[in-house]
Amino acid sequence: MPELRKDPVTSRWVIISTERGRRPSDFGTEPERERVSFCPFCPGNESKTPPEVLAYRPNGTGSNGPGWQLRVVPNKFPALQIEGDLNRQGDGMYDKMNGIGAHEVVIETPEHAETLASMSERRIEDVLWAFHDRVLDLKKDQRFRYILIFKNSGRAAGASLEHPHSQLIATPIIPKRVREELDGAKEYYNYKERCVFCDIIRQELTQEVRIISENDDFVTVAPYASRFPFEAWILPKTHDPFFEDAQKHEYVFLSKMIRDLFLRVEKVLMNPPYNLIIHSSPLRDTDGRYFHWHIELMPKLTHVAGFEWGSGFYINPTPPEDAAKYLRDAKV
Amino acid sequence: MPELRKDPVTSRWVIISTERGRRPSDFGTEPERERVSFCPFCPGNESKTPPEVLAYRPNGTGSNGPGWQLRVVPNKFPALQIEGDLNRQGDGMYDKMNGIGAHEVVIETPEHAETLASMSERRIEDVLWAFHDRVLDLKKDQRFRYILIFKNSGRAAGASLEHPHSQLIATPIIPKRVREELDGAKEYYNYKERCVFCDIIRQELTQEVRIISENDDFVTVAPYASRFPFEAWILPKTHDPFFEDAQKHEYVFLSKMIRDLFLRVEKVLMNPPYNLIIHSSPLRDTDGRYFHWHIELMPKLTHVAGFEWGSGFYINPTPPEDAAKYLRDAKV
Repeated sequence: MPELRKDPVTSRWVIISTERGRRPSDFGTEPERERVSFCPFCPGNESKTPPEVLAYRPNGTGSNGPGWQLRVVPNKFPALQIEGDLNRQGDGMYDKMNGIGAHEVVIETPEHAETLASMSERRIEDVLWAFHDRVLDLKKDQRFRYILIFKNSGRAAGASLEHPHSQLIATPIIPKRVREELDGAKEYYNYKERCVFCDIIRQELTQEVRIISENDDFVTVAPYASRFPFEAWILPKTHDPFFEDAQKHEYVFLSKMIRDLFLRVEKVLMNPPYNLIIHSSPLRDTDGRYFHWHIELMPKLTHVAGFEWGSGFYINPTPPEDAAKYLRDAKV
Repeated sequence: MPELRKDPVTSRWVIISTERGRRPSDFGTEPERERVSFCPFCPGNESKTPPEVLAYRPNGTGSNGPGWQLRVVPNKFPALQIEGDLNRQGDGMYDKMNGIGAHEVVIETPEHAETLASMSERRIEDVLWAFHDRVLDLKKDQRFRYILIFKNSGRAAGASLEHPHSQLIATPIIPKRVREELDGAKEYYNYKERCVFCDIIRQELTQEVRIISENDDFVTVAPYASRFPFEAWILPKTHDPFFEDAQKHEYVFLSKMIRDLFLRVEKVLMNPPYNLIIHSSPLRDTDGRYFHWHIELMPKLTHVAGFEWGSGFYINPTPPEDAAKYLRDAKV
């Protein structure tokens, strides 16, 4: 059972994997850890993953065999485990609890070499529906307070497998960064009586300098205080606190927007490592006025160094206005 | 002039380098960005750095030529600039100010290939004195609220040059992470009427399982909620809020402790990339009861991925008790 431990100074929670404890020799240098050629996510290898919890099989093929368009399976090496209870306890001055949660993998396509730029809009839409369906199901478990949906692509962004996939992690507490964002949005709302994200969309559409792309339901911007070069946020034009409550037409236009953004990123930056994160409200959060779900894309082109770790300040060598112009002007 | 911009949601400040704006083609893939063989920090190349603001020259050699044991120079590509005033202003709903600050580099030794494991204790002590001397000098500038002292080693930790060096960045605002740590320590103090770090030292010395090493003035531990495998904190046994107020014997024992830790790290993990950060109180902070300066070492053996970015939770695959045992048992 993984252990959740709380730092007594900053109240930051850490997940300690007590079972698959990695020894010094497990941390090879980069070139030594070559990708293996076998892929557990490719069709035919379904037995190498835990049994699927969801699959889209348009031709009605049977579970856990080939024929799927998309599969969702529990992570074979979960950061948090689904069985058990929280069991909060102290250890002298320290606090810990059991690492309860859910950790699932969305295998986005049977095609090993696809990317969000090469996938069809229809396929990306399926991925969004899979997120939607899994959130609705996991939400029933009253132990969970938050579900983080994210995608790591490329080794420098923490991906250990190449086959296109994303992940859902349901956590028993609202994560610190989510809490900070919610608190900030709430503070702004209390002061202005307006949603901060709605205000951002209004100002960006007026100033235009940080707009990357726009369609009926979404706008993609390089955020004013971008932490990373070519950081991009996809914001729904309609205020809604929950990703999973989006309208059907929004998933259609979101899949168009994601494909459009990745075509631009691929054109301008080749195929950079990246993290893509859906920011949505905590489960069962009833005051929906102040938070506005959205997606943040962080290409990993620079290394986070001591100054960032120590200060929480980021140094971004590419002004977002420049980044937006490069991406906006890309012929796609 | 770099620009400090504030994220309107999280109030996180970002430094945007408007002058040396990096274009897409500047972000090469790793193997393309090979280290150049010329080193601006080696003796004889003093003219390739800005003029020194401090140097230890035991044989009385002249400024900005060879003969030094240690040099401190302004960073040639500073994250923040020393001239000008803050000039806070709005940009619609956004806030920004000029990137005022100081950014200095401590060239720790004339020897290009030394490490904190191979350097003599005497040399490490000199580095500590250089930090001390520069903080005392920079502190006179009333625009600065905080000075972050840190070292990046290895490319994956953000170091762009190999020659042993560390950095000081003086900032006009107290950085977010520093503020969080201070707030946490203050909250603990208000509740318990004891310093949280003094309590950590007491519990660690009693439990012993996370102790890496100990000498007269310092104890090195693998922290209970380690974010990273083999994370280590060096804590002074005597409570003091400021690094720069340490006693002479403390710098002596700290240099022994640093060397000891790096000998262990080198033995167990070879020569991993790492960030080393001094955590000290903000300048002119008058209530010294709750904060306790210390050093945090973060080896970079894993990649930070989407879950960490999105949640602020870290996943650490090596329990600190295991890490401490490996480092403690290393024959040095």
